[in-house]
Amino acid sequence: MEKVAVIGAGSWGTALALVLADNKHDVSLWTHRKEQAEEINRTHSNPKYLEGVTIPSSIKAHYDLAEAVYGASHILLVVPTKVMREVCQQLAEVIDHPVTITHASKGIEPSTYKRVSEVIAEEMPDKLYEAIVVLSGPSHAEEVSRRQPTTVTVSSENLEKAEAVQELFINERFRVYTSPDLVGVELGGALKNIIALGAGISDGLGYGDNAKAALITRGLAEITRLGVAMGANPLTFSGLSGVGDLIVTCTSPHSRNWRAGNLLGKGNDLEEVLEKMGMVVEGVRTTKAAYQFAEEQQVEMPITNGLYRILFEDAKPKDVVDQLMTRGRRHEMEALSNLLGEQP
Amino acid sequence: MEKVAVIGAGSWGTALALVLADNKHDVSLWTHRKEQAEEINRTHSNPKYLEGVTIPSSIKAHYDLAEAVYGASHILLVVPTKVMREVCQQLAEVIDHPVTITHASKGIEPSTYKRVSEVIAEEMPDKLYEAIVVLSGPSHAEEVSRRQPTTVTVSSENLEKAEAVQELFINERFRVYTSPDLVGVELGGALKNIIALGAGISDGLGYGDNAKAALITRGLAEITRLGVAMGANPLTFSGLSGVGDLIVTCTSPHSRNWRAGNLLGKGNDLEEVLEKMGMVVEGVRTTKAAYQFAEEQQVEMPITNGLYRILFEDAKPKDVVDQLMTRGRRHEMEALSNLLGEQP
Repeated sequence: MEKVAVIGAGSWGTALALVLADNKHDVSLWTHRKEQAEEINRTHSNPKYLEGVTIPSSIKAHYDLAEAVYGASHILLVVPTKVMREVCQQLAEVIDHPVTITHASKGIEPSTYKRVSEVIAEEMPDKLYEAIVVLSGPSHAEEVSRRQPTTVTVSSENLEKAEAVQELFINERFRVYTSPDLVGVELGGALKNIIALGAGISDGLGYGDNAKAALITRGLAEITRLGVAMGANPLTFSGLSGVGDLIVTCTSPHSRNWRAGNLLGKGNDLEEVLEKMGMVVEGVRTTKAAYQFAEEQQVEMPITNGLYRILFEDAKPKDVVDQLMTRGRRHEMEALSNLLGEQP
Repeated sequence: MEKVAVIGAGSWGTALALVLADNKHDVSLWTHRKEQAEEINRTHSNPKYLEGVTIPSSIKAHYDLAEAVYGASHILLVVPTKVMREVCQQLAEVIDHPVTITHASKGIEPSTYKRVSEVIAEEMPDKLYEAIVVLSGPSHAEEVSRRQPTTVTVSSENLEKAEAVQELFINERFRVYTSPDLVGVELGGALKNIIALGAGISDGLGYGDNAKAALITRGLAEITRLGVAMGANPLTFSGLSGVGDLIVTCTSPHSRNWRAGNLLGKGNDLEEVLEKMGMVVEGVRTTKAAYQFAEEQQVEMPITNGLYRILFEDAKPKDVVDQLMTRGRRHEMEALSNLLGEQP
């Protein structure tokens, strides 16, 4: 039994806390909102994020960060990437011994193009952590909380610690695999949200499954291209944290990035969408980061480009999608071979 | 304007005939059933296969094969793979000048492991055709018939003829790309039906999107492995006729292979399923062929193996899927690296 502090009580943090509690670990769940912590402890539920799911009393919610991490050997970070730096700065002040830090957040920082593990490493003093691990894969929180079969990948520069995290989470219903490609696992999870926004837009415009499948296929090629330019192994994009997560995010109404795209496709602008969602839509920020990086490094990313114009330059979704559908290129292998050419 | 004979008036043959008619070609549509041909010509619809869709009067249905192909420069074969040899033998008797033969059928022949283009080449005298072309990709017939945006790939050993076929079909809503990898394009379309059966079973058992995404991800690795062993370029499986078609077939209730799997997952046996479907389910026959080939050539195909046991050896779907979920392997890259190792 380990003591694990889960930092972030949204749907994914709460679902992962349930997995850990199922595995008989001692779990604390932190939220910065006092009322939410009190509600979880009082009602044994987190209705805004996981409706109808019972949270066992072995999970204790806290709004005081020092209390939440007290005595923990593992810390699981599941906060929006936008607040990751700030939360790490606060954590650095309350941790008093080296821990293993796992994160399950999916994004890239605009301007710096840092992955989440890089942001964590920058903000946490070396002496406070033994390893940084990422957990990613096709995993809607709702299904995990209902103990539906799910598979994910963990990765770290420290493979031994990745295996320790695998051990922490693995059970009959929640299968955990390891990968040596930290960069690829982090990028797959982050970049797929861009394509999910696009898939949502296509559906919102009333286009069908044929159009969406074409978009996902090209999206996969495009994010693999960017991933390789950022140092990932292209093969990782063929795995659970790549195409697996891409499929689940693009084809299920559970996905908030897909839902946001859907609202855009139906004619709402970005501000209206974010207001209606009431939750963080990581893909918006990631689109900005990927767009900037691709411009700088001259990586061809037509879908990301089109999305950027929809999100930040008021382009009409229909014009952008129609343009993507009727692009000049006529030989499919041209695009795919570029990919192969860039393989190490 | 070309004269094109479409051989096979199921949903896909009819939808492709509509594309050709939209492009102002002279289209005849053949079915072996006299009543169906008469119904199409009388009602300008094909209600059993494409409900609610109007067939323009420029498309003439025939049940006499010689009449259907008379004067045609292009022949499009869209019949179940099971009757492909027989139909080609009949065609050989009524064609009197060299034509371009395109097929849009998806399967592999059990025992011989022949692809559809190989079956056609075996049955048709060389002097009767200029090239054999395949057309494949993520394309539900229902959506094509409603002019929803769709993209497909054509391929042939004769690239010039592939480009002629591209020219024949391409329009604003139906985008056609060429690929030089005939083997890969044919195998992607055929093998994805195996995984679609599996995805349907997972859904039929009540498992969620997380489980299905994991199955599709591993299924893609598995059919790529087999494809490479059969001579395909692995990159083709990352394209429209590979992962694109796989996604659309595994995630849409339009797909008859998915529907058949769904019925299996709900507890029906193969005989009951085929009776309820009342249409050809290509994946059943393809599973047998892929299983046999993989056994012979020792290609690791756990999903295909499990499906074979469900279809032909009365294994329980739940046991097979649970076993697939909890397999021993713990390092994701092992399976993926195998794939890379096998790349040419």
